[in-house]
Amino acid sequence: MSGKKKFTIGLDFGTEAVRAILVDVSNGKCVASSIYKYTHGIITDKLPDTDIELDPGWALQHPRDYITALRRTVPQLVKDSKVDLDQIIGIGVDFNGSTVIPTTADGTPLALIDDYKDDPHAWPKFWKHQAARDKAERLTRLALERFETFIDRYGGKIHAEWFFPKVWEIFDESSSIYHAADRLIEGSDWITWQLTGVETRNLCAAGYKALWSKSEGFPLETFFAAMDPGLANVVDEKMKREITPLGQQVGELTEEAARWMKLKPGIPVATGILNNHAAVPAATVVQPGSMAIILGSSFMHMILSDKEFQVPGMIGMVADGIVPGHIAYQAGQASGGNHFAWFMQNAVPAAYEREARKRRISLYQLMEEKAAQLEPAESGLIALDWWNGNRSILVDDDLNGLVLGYSLDTRPEEVYRALLEATTFGTRKIVETFIASGVPINEIIVTGGAPMQNKLLLNILASVTHMEIKVADCPYTSALGAAMYAAVAAGADRGGYATIEDASQKMSRLKKETFIPNNNDKKTYNRLYSEYTLLHDYFGYGHNDAMKRLKNLRTTILEKKNR
Amino acid sequence: MSGKKKFTIGLDFGTEAVRAILVDVSNGKCVASSIYKYTHGIITDKLPDTDIELDPGWALQHPRDYITALRRTVPQLVKDSKVDLDQIIGIGVDFNGSTVIPTTADGTPLALIDDYKDDPHAWPKFWKHQAARDKAERLTRLALERFETFIDRYGGKIHAEWFFPKVWEIFDESSSIYHAADRLIEGSDWITWQLTGVETRNLCAAGYKALWSKSEGFPLETFFAAMDPGLANVVDEKMKREITPLGQQVGELTEEAARWMKLKPGIPVATGILNNHAAVPAATVVQPGSMAIILGSSFMHMILSDKEFQVPGMIGMVADGIVPGHIAYQAGQASGGNHFAWFMQNAVPAAYEREARKRRISLYQLMEEKAAQLEPAESGLIALDWWNGNRSILVDDDLNGLVLGYSLDTRPEEVYRALLEATTFGTRKIVETFIASGVPINEIIVTGGAPMQNKLLLNILASVTHMEIKVADCPYTSALGAAMYAAVAAGADRGGYATIEDASQKMSRLKKETFIPNNNDKKTYNRLYSEYTLLHDYFGYGHNDAMKRLKNLRTTILEKKNR
Repeated sequence: MSGKKKFTIGLDFGTEAVRAILVDVSNGKCVASSIYKYTHGIITDKLPDTDIELDPGWALQHPRDYITALRRTVPQLVKDSKVDLDQIIGIGVDFNGSTVIPTTADGTPLALIDDYKDDPHAWPKFWKHQAARDKAERLTRLALERFETFIDRYGGKIHAEWFFPKVWEIFDESSSIYHAADRLIEGSDWITWQLTGVETRNLCAAGYKALWSKSEGFPLETFFAAMDPGLANVVDEKMKREITPLGQQVGELTEEAARWMKLKPGIPVATGILNNHAAVPAATVVQPGSMAIILGSSFMHMILSDKEFQVPGMIGMVADGIVPGHIAYQAGQASGGNHFAWFMQNAVPAAYEREARKRRISLYQLMEEKAAQLEPAESGLIALDWWNGNRSILVDDDLNGLVLGYSLDTRPEEVYRALLEATTFGTRKIVETFIASGVPINEIIVTGGAPMQNKLLLNILASVTHMEIKVADCPYTSALGAAMYAAVAAGADRGGYATIEDASQKMSRLKKETFIPNNNDKKTYNRLYSEYTLLHDYFGYGHNDAMKRLKNLRTTILEKKNR
Repeated sequence: MSGKKKFTIGLDFGTEAVRAILVDVSNGKCVASSIYKYTHGIITDKLPDTDIELDPGWALQHPRDYITALRRTVPQLVKDSKVDLDQIIGIGVDFNGSTVIPTTADGTPLALIDDYKDDPHAWPKFWKHQAARDKAERLTRLALERFETFIDRYGGKIHAEWFFPKVWEIFDESSSIYHAADRLIEGSDWITWQLTGVETRNLCAAGYKALWSKSEGFPLETFFAAMDPGLANVVDEKMKREITPLGQQVGELTEEAARWMKLKPGIPVATGILNNHAAVPAATVVQPGSMAIILGSSFMHMILSDKEFQVPGMIGMVADGIVPGHIAYQAGQASGGNHFAWFMQNAVPAAYEREARKRRISLYQLMEEKAAQLEPAESGLIALDWWNGNRSILVDDDLNGLVLGYSLDTRPEEVYRALLEATTFGTRKIVETFIASGVPINEIIVTGGAPMQNKLLLNILASVTHMEIKVADCPYTSALGAAMYAAVAAGADRGGYATIEDASQKMSRLKKETFIPNNNDKKTYNRLYSEYTLLHDYFGYGHNDAMKRLKNLRTTILEKKNR
């Protein structure tokens, strides 16, 4: 391998595993890849090595797993690629968020300290942690009542996964942990701190998860005091007001961290970033007009704009949030891959499973094949894709799914196709809302996980949105994005790039195969979409709150049953 | 066996088979039972022994099967029971309807005559025959436009299965068969004709299927002429104006028919009756106040009353239609056992099938067991039970099913329970509508087929309707009913009974086990029922005609696809 080539490392701290890749800076080619599945996984039942039980909705991680990930993956990259250590010019990290880690002043997680480790609040609260939902609701109400301007940047809602609901939960439920925590820090920032010895707060996580903006900073002390007087100075006491832009060098790799990873110390480490957001430039999206959709368990929609618009139901709007100089909007669909997985597990009959086994194909492949043989509207079905609530436009977790049009002739593949279609109708609703709000969208570029394999989904998406669907070429776009920001942090002088736009130009690409709208299907889908819209508005805007009443009744019944 | 005991034979010409039973007249005990599955089944593809294909929606039967049924079943009854032939004092027949048989003047089916047998219209049109649906719609429109009073007795709708749509179809599509047919006759009347040599027309089929009533007779010639001038005299030319009440003796068994069945000639044969209606007195219902529900593939609801009320959405109202002296109302739910079978076939995952196989129980048993462990409202689901349209209240075949409230936690047994519940909500809607219209209902008595095994369904039905559910003791209530009418036709002097009330008093009984409403469940179901009602009215009364639009679109798409 040529001694002149430069490489960066991208580390993607995902939901179930850490993916590390080594990337050729000149062309974005991934020359080595390694994965580490969290030893302790997502901790939802008991604290590790104890009998201390967690309440429902809890989701923690083990901080030691984060360091183990570094030890396991990076040396493998070097070994597999046989690059010289000198060729590695930067390290970038993306991380799920908000993952809140309480630490001492030197960054030691309280979970690793004997005095605190038996308190669940000492542990990193994973993004999936839902136990602070009531806090999120109170925060939302408070912000709306006080007419706080920041709430407008978040579609009028603060989500339970975010930073301050989790912080408030610690404060409220464990005074000792709250007071012992010198710092409360995002996973993405904790990792770069471990790598460099420098504590920073990245703009992406601060903007999307901690209510910060470039123009207004964090919410005022009066707001935090309204939550609780004891929280008035949470930012100054436990966080940092200085926020680090993306693509900067936060510091250089320390001796200790270099030993973990068998690298040389001194390598520039880039500002941390959230993992969905890192995928955006890696999917070639660094300018306004292209929407990147990250197709995972849930779907995330990212779009850049030069102007600030109030887009109804968006999840977040952060200036410089992905590409410095642009406002980055985020929307989302809570039901995506998780929804299709639900279907495969709960609604496909045994005869189909037998057929798939006999033909040695997966159930997904079989169902896609069968559903692809159907014409749009052939099933007579229409669905609302709210199996996991509605995240954008309606922004309502209490909504639930619906299927209408069942007959005695309805076959499983028809239901499956209706679910795929409903998901794309949900996407169209988001796309239309952005466009109507002033944010132009000319093309859709998709990237992500399992749903990416589903060509039928992408074909339907094209015809439903009337847009060509392009596909990011790299299978690990979050890790690639991290490696791209690393190249920017290294800078052009060291063989990297001056801007993320430059990095994207060279390091990211699309597949040749795209998905083109079908003219006939477009017309049929327009009709189906109008049915979707009727139902969406009827059940979504309170004309019939059946879903919420049923959910409340269910909660009451379950509480009684489990008493 | 005592020489003094008297027996009657009940012959039930069902959808898939003929059930014959020999019944002890003194106590209704079934002393022998025999079944014959139609050799030619339901003919939907090709005319027997030909390559002549049938269009979609066609459903015929082979007239020879009807006689074969007599030959096969009755001798077996005598053999098994060892009764003396003299002890058999009557024969009763019930039959699916409307099954229209074109015959010569002596009763020979045209399907058995070489000149006609290659014309599908020559064959008995089974009740399931749906090809005359457009005729039924035109008949309905015509009757409504002309303000015909008879249409009020049928909930404003003439159904495709009935007599005159099938007759009109023959007239319109096969002039030669229409003209060759000296007689057009119901299966129930054709069989008693074969048994006795006497052509009669029973009141039950005439009333429920051929628009006849005691007070008004058949529709006027002007109505038939409005269908087509050539049909003006259809009643006088091909039918009979004289209608035979139930429980009468239509004639005595002929020598020939006696030979088929190895019986003695001269046995009284009772007026024919439709099979669901025969089940009513056999389920002990011979007075106002008790609703009999026949739980089959679809559900039928029968209730007697002394007064005539306009009940919205009833299917039929016939004076003397089941018990002379009472008006018999009929309502129906198109989705019953067929709906549950759809679920088992299309929506239960492989893991469940494996569990059922391992435990050597049926999938029905497994799903019932799992669903029974749920509390009402625990699933958060609500469904509209219109998989096969709505037969009563809304009377709309174009409605389709709906399930609302799906989440990622939704399990198959929750969906199953929601479908069971929806069916009982549909029943409650019918019960409430009857009561509100002036027809009192104090108890529900169920009888029928497969759904009878489903104790969960009956438990839910009790709590949803707030009524005790009682269960007819005999598994063959239609055949028992036929045997009871036979005992009435024989008369008290010959060892039978003077009236069907007397026969019911002695020959029918209920099981000891009943299903009692649960007070807690009643309250929860009241809430769920109000959600059902909201959705029922929204989608049923045209606030959102999504189901119909989707169905129309589906039809168009399928026509294009199959072209």
